[in-house]
Amino acid sequence: MDKILRIQMGPDQAPTAKTEPLGDYEGFGGRGMTSTIVAKEVPPLCHPLGAENKLVIAPGLLSGTAAAMSGRISVGCKSPLTGGIKEANAGGQPAQVLARLGYAAIVLEGHPAEDKLYKILVNKDGVEIEPADDLKMKGNYDTVEKLTSEYGEKICCITIGQAGEMKMLASTVACTDMEVRPARHAARGGVGAVMGSKGVKAIVLDDAGMSMRSAKDPDKFKEANKTFVSGLRNHSVTGQGLPAYGTNVLTNVVNEAGAYPTYNFKTGRFKGAAAISGETQAETETARGGKATHGCHRGCVIRCSGIYHDKDGHYLTKQPEYETVWAHGGNCGIDDLDSIAMLDRLDDDYGLDTIEMGATIGVAMEAGLAEYGDANKAIELVREVGKGTPLGRILGSGAAVTGKVFGVERVPVVKNQSMPAYDPRAVQGMGVTYATTTMGADHTAGYAVTANLLGVGGNVDALKPEGQIELSRNLQVATAAIDSTGMCLFIAFAILDQQETFQAMIDMINAFHGLNFTADDVSELGKKILKLERDFNERAGFGPKDDRLPDYFRTESFGPHDVTFQISGEDLDSVYNF
Amino acid sequence: MDKILRIQMGPDQAPTAKTEPLGDYEGFGGRGMTSTIVAKEVPPLCHPLGAENKLVIAPGLLSGTAAAMSGRISVGCKSPLTGGIKEANAGGQPAQVLARLGYAAIVLEGHPAEDKLYKILVNKDGVEIEPADDLKMKGNYDTVEKLTSEYGEKICCITIGQAGEMKMLASTVACTDMEVRPARHAARGGVGAVMGSKGVKAIVLDDAGMSMRSAKDPDKFKEANKTFVSGLRNHSVTGQGLPAYGTNVLTNVVNEAGAYPTYNFKTGRFKGAAAISGETQAETETARGGKATHGCHRGCVIRCSGIYHDKDGHYLTKQPEYETVWAHGGNCGIDDLDSIAMLDRLDDDYGLDTIEMGATIGVAMEAGLAEYGDANKAIELVREVGKGTPLGRILGSGAAVTGKVFGVERVPVVKNQSMPAYDPRAVQGMGVTYATTTMGADHTAGYAVTANLLGVGGNVDALKPEGQIELSRNLQVATAAIDSTGMCLFIAFAILDQQETFQAMIDMINAFHGLNFTADDVSELGKKILKLERDFNERAGFGPKDDRLPDYFRTESFGPHDVTFQISGEDLDSVYNF
Repeated sequence: MDKILRIQMGPDQAPTAKTEPLGDYEGFGGRGMTSTIVAKEVPPLCHPLGAENKLVIAPGLLSGTAAAMSGRISVGCKSPLTGGIKEANAGGQPAQVLARLGYAAIVLEGHPAEDKLYKILVNKDGVEIEPADDLKMKGNYDTVEKLTSEYGEKICCITIGQAGEMKMLASTVACTDMEVRPARHAARGGVGAVMGSKGVKAIVLDDAGMSMRSAKDPDKFKEANKTFVSGLRNHSVTGQGLPAYGTNVLTNVVNEAGAYPTYNFKTGRFKGAAAISGETQAETETARGGKATHGCHRGCVIRCSGIYHDKDGHYLTKQPEYETVWAHGGNCGIDDLDSIAMLDRLDDDYGLDTIEMGATIGVAMEAGLAEYGDANKAIELVREVGKGTPLGRILGSGAAVTGKVFGVERVPVVKNQSMPAYDPRAVQGMGVTYATTTMGADHTAGYAVTANLLGVGGNVDALKPEGQIELSRNLQVATAAIDSTGMCLFIAFAILDQQETFQAMIDMINAFHGLNFTADDVSELGKKILKLERDFNERAGFGPKDDRLPDYFRTESFGPHDVTFQISGEDLDSVYNF
Repeated sequence: MDKILRIQMGPDQAPTAKTEPLGDYEGFGGRGMTSTIVAKEVPPLCHPLGAENKLVIAPGLLSGTAAAMSGRISVGCKSPLTGGIKEANAGGQPAQVLARLGYAAIVLEGHPAEDKLYKILVNKDGVEIEPADDLKMKGNYDTVEKLTSEYGEKICCITIGQAGEMKMLASTVACTDMEVRPARHAARGGVGAVMGSKGVKAIVLDDAGMSMRSAKDPDKFKEANKTFVSGLRNHSVTGQGLPAYGTNVLTNVVNEAGAYPTYNFKTGRFKGAAAISGETQAETETARGGKATHGCHRGCVIRCSGIYHDKDGHYLTKQPEYETVWAHGGNCGIDDLDSIAMLDRLDDDYGLDTIEMGATIGVAMEAGLAEYGDANKAIELVREVGKGTPLGRILGSGAAVTGKVFGVERVPVVKNQSMPAYDPRAVQGMGVTYATTTMGADHTAGYAVTANLLGVGGNVDALKPEGQIELSRNLQVATAAIDSTGMCLFIAFAILDQQETFQAMIDMINAFHGLNFTADDVSELGKKILKLERDFNERAGFGPKDDRLPDYFRTESFGPHDVTFQISGEDLDSVYNF
C-alpha cells in the first residue's frame, strides 16, 4: 500500500492509468485518505458529475492484513446528493484485495468526452482499461457474472448498476462479497453516479500472486489481534446479538423503545415489527437453507450478515440489514420479509441505496403514489427506477427530490440525504448526528444509539437533550478514526465498553506500521478528518442552517413518547467546538 | 388602502376572513409590503408549502390611482423554488382593483386540513370564501371563464392553474388583463404552488361601487402625472421601441450583441433570431388581426404588450414577451413564432413560468429528451406538465430539479431559479444581478442590460468586469423601490435618463400621500427592502456561496466574444455593502 493509482478518464485524451508514490498522502487510509484527497483536490463548487470531481476508493490502514474486521473500503467524492463531501463505505472483498495489490487508493479523474463505458482490470501485472459497452445498462449481478466468466472466480469487483450509469442521486458503488456477489454497497450520497459520470462500469481486482501485507512487528501484531478478537467475542453485542440475528436484531429493540420510524416518520412503533424482526429473519433463513450467520468479508469474526433464500430455497439476496428492513419495511408499513428481501435484491442489482429508496417510497406513499403497506406496489416502484422511466428517475433521485416533485411537506432528510431507521425525536443523540455530520443524515457517522438505547459506552436518556451533543461529538470523532483503519464500525460496541479491546486496536496499528499511536492520537486523527470535511463543506456553501433537521421534527410530536426534537440550533452549532 | 385582509385557511378551523388596520405596515406597498410581511411573519426555516408560510398579495403605493403605469401587483412568500424570500410581480387589472377596494394586502395563511379548494370573492360588501371543487384541475382560461359566467365580465381574477394545484415549483399566480384573460403572471419562484398549498384556486375582485383613489393634493398630482407621461413618451425606449415591437424588440438587439443564450446557454447568437424577433412578431400580429401595441392594464402609456392570433385569426395568447420568446425559442433552438405562442398559451393556462419552463426544456434537450429545434416535442413536453404525468412533474419542478433527475451538468440556475434571456458572460452586469439578488436568477431585480447594452443610464462595457458591481447594486436598490410603487419597471428607462421624469415620479408619490420624499429617500427605501430580504435569506440558511453563478460560467467560454464570467466572489460579496 505504497502507491496511488490515478485513472484519468478524459475528456481531452483516451483513458490512461498512472501509478504514483503516496507523497503527501502517506499515512492515510480509508476515510482519512478519501476525505483528504477530495478536500485537497476537488474544487468545492464544482458540479459533482463534472470532470473536476474525483472518485476516490481507498482501503483502510489495516486492510489486506491478518487483522480481524479490516475489510471495509471507503469511497469518497463530492456528493451529487448532498453537494458536500462524501465518504460511503462498504464491506466485501475489495478492501483486502486492493490493499494486497499495494494500492492505498484508486482515484478516478475527469470523464470521457463521449458517452462511453469502461472497465478497469487491476492485477499483479498492472492496470488495463478496456471498453465495456457490452455491460451497458446491466445490473450488478449480471455485470459480475459476465466479469467472472471472463476473469475467473477469484476476482473481486467494484461495479455500478443501471442507477449509477443513469447518474441517479441514490446510486451506489457495489462491492462483491466472499461469494463474488455484488451485495455490499458503498451506498450513500450517490457515489455510484460519480463513478457513472466517469464512465467506469467496473473495476476488477485480482490479487493472484500477491501476499498478505506483513506487519513491522509480526509478533506484537499477532498478539494484539488475538486480544482484539477475544474482546469482540466477549461483548454481548458483537459476540452474541449480531452473530445470531444480524443487524436486524435491532428491529425489536428500537420498536420496543418507541423509536422506530413508521409510515414515513409518523409514529414510533410498527405493529408488524415482529414479522420482520431479526429473530424471524434468522429463523426463515435457516429453515430455507440460507444462512443466519455469515461474514461479509474474509477475516470477519462478528459475522452479522447472512444469506436469504426465497421460498423455493434459492439464493435471493444477502441478509437485508436492519436499516434496509426498516426502510422498505416499517417505514412503508410493509411487514413481509420476502418482499423486503426482493426490494433489497433489486436495490443491490440496480445499485441503489436501500435507505434512500425506502425513505423515498415512504415519501411517495405520503404523496399518494401507493398505500402504506402495499409491498407489490413498492416493488413495482423500485422496478421503475431500474428501468429509468420518468417516475423511476424521480424516485432514483431520492427523498428530497421526490418530495419537491410531488409537493410533499414531510420529507425526512438532512443535506438532502434521507434519515435512517432511528427517529431523531426518540433517539435525540441520533438527531444531533443527523443534523451535524458532514455527510447528511447518516447513522454510521456517530451512532448514538449506543448510549441512547443499548447501554453501550454509558447511558444517555434518549428522550432528553442533556448530554447528546457531547455523546454525538465523541462518537463522530471516534468514527472518523475507525473509518480510516478499514475496520468495521461494529468493533465500536466492544471498544467503547472494553478498554483492553480499544488498546488492542491501537496496538495492532502500531505493531503493523511501527508507530507509537496513543488513544489521544486516535482522537486527534478523527478530529482532523472531521475538520477538513467540514472545511470542504463550508467552502461548498454549507452553513449552520444546513446543520438542522427539517422543522417538523421540532413541531410534530412523535408517539408513543409524545416527544419533539429538543436540541437548540445553538447547541447543534457547538458540536464542532474542538 | 388602509387595511389588510387576512384569510386563515386552516387547518384547525374552516377558512375565515378578517380585516385589520395597517398598523406596523402603514406606508408600505407592493414589494415593500410583501417582503416586510414575509420577513416579519414567516419563519425562515419553515417548509414553503406548510401552514407557516404566507402568501401576500399587495398593490403598490400608487395602484388604484390615476397615476400612469401603476398597475403592478406584488406576490410574496417564502419560495418553494429557491427556499428564500420571493416577490414576483405582474401586470393586469388586480392591482388597481384591489387598491380601489381599499386593501393594501391580502394575506393567505395556514392551509386546509384536507385537500380542498376554495375561491375568495372580494367586493364592496366584504369577503366571501366558498368551496371551489368544481374548478379542480381546470386551467386558468377555463377557470376565469367559469368565474366570469358566475360573477360577470367586470371582475378581475387572481387564479392558479393545474401547476399551482399540483404545487409545482415552476407554477405561477395568474392575473387577468383588461380583456379578463389570465395572461399576466406573477411567474417566478413557484408562488402558484404556495397559493395551491393554501387551497385557494381563485380570488375574484369586483370594484363595482368603488371609486378611484384620490390624492391629498390633486392638482400637484395631476401635474406630476402629466410630466411623467410626457417623459415616458419622449424616451426612445418607452416612447418608440417598446410600443412598436413590445419587449421582443430585444431579440435582434441582444442577438446582435452576441449575448443571446442559445442551445441551453452554449453560444450567444441564434441563426433563427430574425424569424422570432419583435419586428416579425409585430408584423405577424398585425397581419392576422391581432394587436402589436396594447397595454396589459388600464393606465398604461407604454403599451408594450400585444395580442397574438393564430393562423386562422383567432386569439391564441397575449403577445409573448422577449424572455418567453427566448426561453421557448432561441434557448431551445426553436425559430417558429406560432409554436412559441402556443407554448406561451399553454404555460399561461397551466400556470407556469415561461422562463423556467423554457430553461427547463433546454436542460431536457441537453439530457436527450428532445432535439434542439423540435418545437412539436417541446409542446408535447409542456402538455405533460399540465397533465401531471411523472415526466411532467419533473419538468414542472424547474431546471434545477430536472438537471438533478437526469444527471445534467450544465444547468443555468442561481438559487435553483433559471436564468433569463441574457447570458451573464456577455452581459456581465446581469451576471452580478443573477448571482446576488435575493430572488434567484432574475433579470428584473437589477436590469443591467440598460447600461451594458442599451446605453440607458450610462455606458458600462458588457464584456468587462469593471463597473458592473456598482451598476447592479444601484439598479437593485432602485428596482426594490420602484417595485413598491406599483409602477411598471419599464419606467426605469425614462427615469434613468431623464432627471425630470424621475422627479415627476417622486412628486406623484408626495402629492398623493402628502409626503416630502426626496431621491435619497427613494434610495433608502430600496436599501431597506433589500436588507430585510437578505436578512430573511440569511436566516433561511443562505450564505455567500449561494451568491454565485454555476461554475461553468467561469470556465466555459461563450461565443462569439469568447468570454467567461469574470467577476470574483469577493466582488460579488460587496454588492450589499451599503
